[in-house]
This record gives sequence, structure tokens and C-alpha cells, in this order.
Amino acid sequence: MVDRQSYRNAMARFGAAVNVVTSDGPAGRCGFTASAVCSVTDDPPTVLVCMNRSSDNNAAFKRNGVLCVNTLSGSQQALSSLFGGLTHDMATRFASADWTELSTGAPVLEGAIAAFDCRVAQVVEVGTHSVFFCEVEGVVFEDVHDGLIYFGRDYHRVIKAAG
Amino acid sequence: MVDRQSYRNAMARFGAAVNVVTSDGPAGRCGFTASAVCSVTDDPPTVLVCMNRSSDNNAAFKRNGVLCVNTLSGSQQALSSLFGGLTHDMATRFASADWTELSTGAPVLEGAIAAFDCRVAQVVEVGTHSVFFCEVEGVVFEDVHDGLIYFGRDYHRVIKAAG
Repeated sequence: MVDRQSYRNAMARFGAAVNVVTSDGPAGRCGFTASAVCSVTDDPPTVLVCMNRSSDNNAAFKRNGVLCVNTLSGSQQALSSLFGGLTHDMATRFASADWTELSTGAPVLEGAIAAFDCRVAQVVEVGTHSVFFCEVEGVVFEDVHDGLIYFGRDYHRVIKAAG
Repeated sequence: MVDRQSYRNAMARFGAAVNVVTSDGPAGRCGFTASAVCSVTDDPPTVLVCMNRSSDNNAAFKRNGVLCVNTLSGSQQALSSLFGGLTHDMATRFASADWTELSTGAPVLEGAIAAFDCRVAQVVEVGTHSVFFCEVEGVVFEDVHDGLIYFGRDYHRVIKAAG
């Protein structure tokens, strides 16, 4: 098995979209920054989200059973830091942006370049993490293609001209 | 449930690293381009790869039980097209680049900015796709941070200065 530090150094070369994943329901409003998110299939539309089992968020997301993957735009880097741990107070995190909701009630971030409103269909536990398989009930997205990528332990902006 | 086209349009806003995922063993050498790859945990170091169940690759990867995630550098865009379906002939695909191997025997791409040599630990079937959970036995990576990102239905290059 490879050692953890080598694995992390290699993973630093693996670029990924930055997302604020949110939830609401019986366990209350919660959210965190995640890059370990990917599309599984479009039939039925399904995404997966990896989440540390030791975080407070984990039990809350499981209890709520719904989540929204809010994919950050290039101008939303500050939200990544905030939901990534700059503060642990959920009220402070959510007060820093505007939110709406779709069918599940999970907070949908205004200005995200895409948002995936989901119901959790299955959770698979793997080592330290839970993998949430989520069926997508609704999406919203911006016309502008201005995305935030985490790569080389730093933020990058990717922009595609309209047309 | 959201319709497939809306889901795809939203997912076009979700940037992702581009990888050539390879395998070798009793079912022979095979490989395909994948962006649905992510890190699950570093304890034990584990990545996941989503793969269509209807592809020829699927059965071969399961039989081989090993795979390598080769994360493409900014200069390897042509390999993405080739392994993404420009040709279906595996010999032609592999003849277009140089390969080495680590402990599992899966082909490791020369010039990839990172490679994750893995043994398949578990497969979860979700809709049209199989999700391969893979324990990472070895990694190699480049010092240069020059990555290939697929975003807005187009390729982008992200570069981080050394230091």
C-alpha cells in the first residue's frame, strides 16, 4: 500500500471542481466544501459525494436524507474557505450567501454555476469515509461558464467563452 | 426526477480532471478515458472510478481486478480523444504512448502528471454504471503542475508555477 503522504502528493495533481454541499431537514441546516464529488450515471441521474465519517456533518446529512451539490463559480472562492472550515458555525457559514430551494428543501446557492438537488439513495462506507449516492431531482445552472478548480493545492479559474 | 438533458447541461458546468484508466491481466490490456474518478479516502488510500456497464471494458476490468488511473497532463489531450472512442482498437490506443508498470501490472502512462496503481477492492452497481472502489498500491507523479480539465464541453489547461 502506498503511504498517505505520497498519496496526497499525487492527488494534489488531480484537478477537481469545488462544491459547497448543503442539507436541511430534521437535523437542521448544514454544509461543507467538497471536491470529492462526481457524476455516476444519467440514468437515473445520480451523483456521489464522499464525506468524512468523523465530521458532525455526516450524521446530519444521513438523518436529513437530502442534499444539494452547489458547484462554485470562479468568483465564489471565499465560500470555499468558509465552508471548508474557516468557521464551524453553520449560521455564520449560511449568512455569507443567498439561498433558495428546490423540491428537497436543501439550500441552493445563488450564483453557483450549477446546483444538483438530490435525495440520498444509498450510502456505502469505505474506510474513513461515507460515499453518498444521490438521485438528482432538480438542477439549476448559469449560462456563463466560469468555474472554480482546485489543483496543485491552489484555486484556478476556468472560463469558456459563450457561443 | 430531472430529465437527462438538463442533468447533462448542468454537469457540463462541473469541471473534472481527465484520466486514462488502464488495466491488464487475464482479460488482456484495455483502457478508456474517464472523468468520473475521485478520491474517497487516504486511509486506506482509495479512489473510485465509474464505468458504463455496457462497455466491453467493464467485464475486462472486473476480470483483471487491477487498474491504473493515469491523470493526463495539459499536453496529453490527444490521448483523451483516442481512449475516449476515436478508435476502439486497444492495440492502436496503446501504441500511441509509452507505458511502464508498477506492482499490479496495469499500464502506467509515461508523462501523466499523476498515476494511481490500484487493486479493485469492491464494485457497486448503480443504474447503468459500475463504481469501482480501488485501493492504491503505488503512485508516481510529475513535479510540474500542468493539468488537463474538461469543463464547458471543452478542454482547459491549469498550470501552477513551481515553488
